[in-house]
Amino acid sequence: MIRLQIQEVQEVLREVLEKLGFSRNRADLCARLFAESSRDGVYSHGLGRFPRFVRGIRNGLVNVHATPEFVAARGPLERWNGRGGVGNLNAWQSMERAIALARTHGASCVALAHTNHWMRGGTYGWQAAEAGVIGICWTNTMPNLPPWGASVPLLGNNPLVIAVPRPKGHLVLDMAMSQFSYGALESYRSRGELLPVEGGFDSEGRLTRDPVAIETSGRPLPIGYWKGSGLTLMLDLLAGLLSGGRVTHEIVADPERESDLSQVFIALDLSSFGESSGAAIVADEVVGYLQSSLRKGDRVRYPGENVLKIRIESLAKGIGVEPGLWKEIMEMR
Amino acid sequence: MIRLQIQEVQEVLREVLEKLGFSRNRADLCARLFAESSRDGVYSHGLGRFPRFVRGIRNGLVNVHATPEFVAARGPLERWNGRGGVGNLNAWQSMERAIALARTHGASCVALAHTNHWMRGGTYGWQAAEAGVIGICWTNTMPNLPPWGASVPLLGNNPLVIAVPRPKGHLVLDMAMSQFSYGALESYRSRGELLPVEGGFDSEGRLTRDPVAIETSGRPLPIGYWKGSGLTLMLDLLAGLLSGGRVTHEIVADPERESDLSQVFIALDLSSFGESSGAAIVADEVVGYLQSSLRKGDRVRYPGENVLKIRIESLAKGIGVEPGLWKEIMEMR
Repeated sequence: MIRLQIQEVQEVLREVLEKLGFSRNRADLCARLFAESSRDGVYSHGLGRFPRFVRGIRNGLVNVHATPEFVAARGPLERWNGRGGVGNLNAWQSMERAIALARTHGASCVALAHTNHWMRGGTYGWQAAEAGVIGICWTNTMPNLPPWGASVPLLGNNPLVIAVPRPKGHLVLDMAMSQFSYGALESYRSRGELLPVEGGFDSEGRLTRDPVAIETSGRPLPIGYWKGSGLTLMLDLLAGLLSGGRVTHEIVADPERESDLSQVFIALDLSSFGESSGAAIVADEVVGYLQSSLRKGDRVRYPGENVLKIRIESLAKGIGVEPGLWKEIMEMR
Repeated sequence: MIRLQIQEVQEVLREVLEKLGFSRNRADLCARLFAESSRDGVYSHGLGRFPRFVRGIRNGLVNVHATPEFVAARGPLERWNGRGGVGNLNAWQSMERAIALARTHGASCVALAHTNHWMRGGTYGWQAAEAGVIGICWTNTMPNLPPWGASVPLLGNNPLVIAVPRPKGHLVLDMAMSQFSYGALESYRSRGELLPVEGGFDSEGRLTRDPVAIETSGRPLPIGYWKGSGLTLMLDLLAGLLSGGRVTHEIVADPERESDLSQVFIALDLSSFGESSGAAIVADEVVGYLQSSLRKGDRVRYPGENVLKIRIESLAKGIGVEPGLWKEIMEMR
């Protein structure tokens, strides 16, 4: 791993994106979102994902010029059509819209159809929290997770994000519905490690901690077995119903061709109850209680705590980038 | 187990409730919700919970006359004070309010503070689905679940309910954030069975499938380990922030004195998009795809499928009730 300043990383990504036809402003934001994901330690959906993203543009999967189009509204419930545009820009704009609607209505729900992979889901949670509102969002995915009781991937792992603002460090949960994402399995494999807990079935249908066996079988485990299986099904259905877009079984089951996703962005603004500061106190108390109630040997992190720690380190020492990957990106300019 | 007609069960419960001071109408609804939970196979939060509920009334924990009081609103986002009233009646009224708000605004969020245990969470999902809207609700609980990495119960198991209407059988997910509820552990214990998967830690901190060891240690496992731990923390925080009520660490950690809970009821009405029928088709397709894509030996149930099966059986043969429990309830009249 080499360490690079975030400005340098962002600048290079922006140049690549401009060469691919992005306008200056859109290239700036898109590059920033990729760079910030790596800055926060989510390498798999930061720079690690950039080459595949560029392939998607070159293959015509992602239209760099398309922006979301308004479809229909009922008060704070809106539908937009992502028109196959850039996934992270579409998602960013949708959360901006949800935040604006929540400032007017208190609560809002923006559903986005026909969009592309949003990269790091947590991005849009941090976005809401930075704006001082509660943010909840999720996306569906291609079929990549067998439901509990089945041996074939019929469901998506549908990442869910919940963010609550807190001045001393926002709480941001960002979790896929599989116990280990394919990116996590890859990391364990490359380090030659077993998973800390069982993460799926091998090809014989036995629970295993071997990441390679799970990559081979295509049978990762939903969180909580039957429970995560049910939850991810409902998240997919809600995303499809609210957006009027596709549900998982209608999405191409190929990581290089995964597209036409459905996403939901909810924002809740408590400021009308005069409780922005009260809310921060409650969030502080919840975190403080957790941290002060542990017994010897216990160690608990609140959602987002580790991201903030890595962010501070990255800003001080530079973002960690794999040298081969950086060379590949530099050559795209 | 004896089998009783639902009308008979409801009648007896109603008589007990009237004797405890309920008005006729409120006794009717409260009795129906208890009876329907047993009818649907959720015995632990149906008749099985009735004696503890009655003790709560006698101990002054539950005020049979209190109804939710409006606190504040911002468009479709409302706050209500449950004033220590009857948990299932308070929750029912809150979901009714969320449904009514969704019919006006498209989306709504009703947050209820200072309420009591809502018994079966799924009740309010079925309620929304019967009204033809999407329902999402959750409650916090007393501390009963150690966060991942800790050995003491600092979080609640905060049941989450998501319901999508479907004429051929609603999809209703009703799940606590622990892998097995205390009610489920009790069932396995009484049958002398091990859990099908690891459900918690024993007192030595080893993962175990022994229900007694988990009841003894007080260390059930969150679904998906660190993931469910984070999710349940966020659900608690959202419930406290939205309602302005208590968060888990402020709730008395004693099942006989658990009170002053915070709950959230969200409703989403797609009918304004002219898509009630379209939504039903999508839900049908999702269920149909699951059921038709299985390989030999696979068996998948959609959320709510088993409830409906047991309901049909209960309506045909009567509700299953444990004879000792029925005797105890009969003597309360």
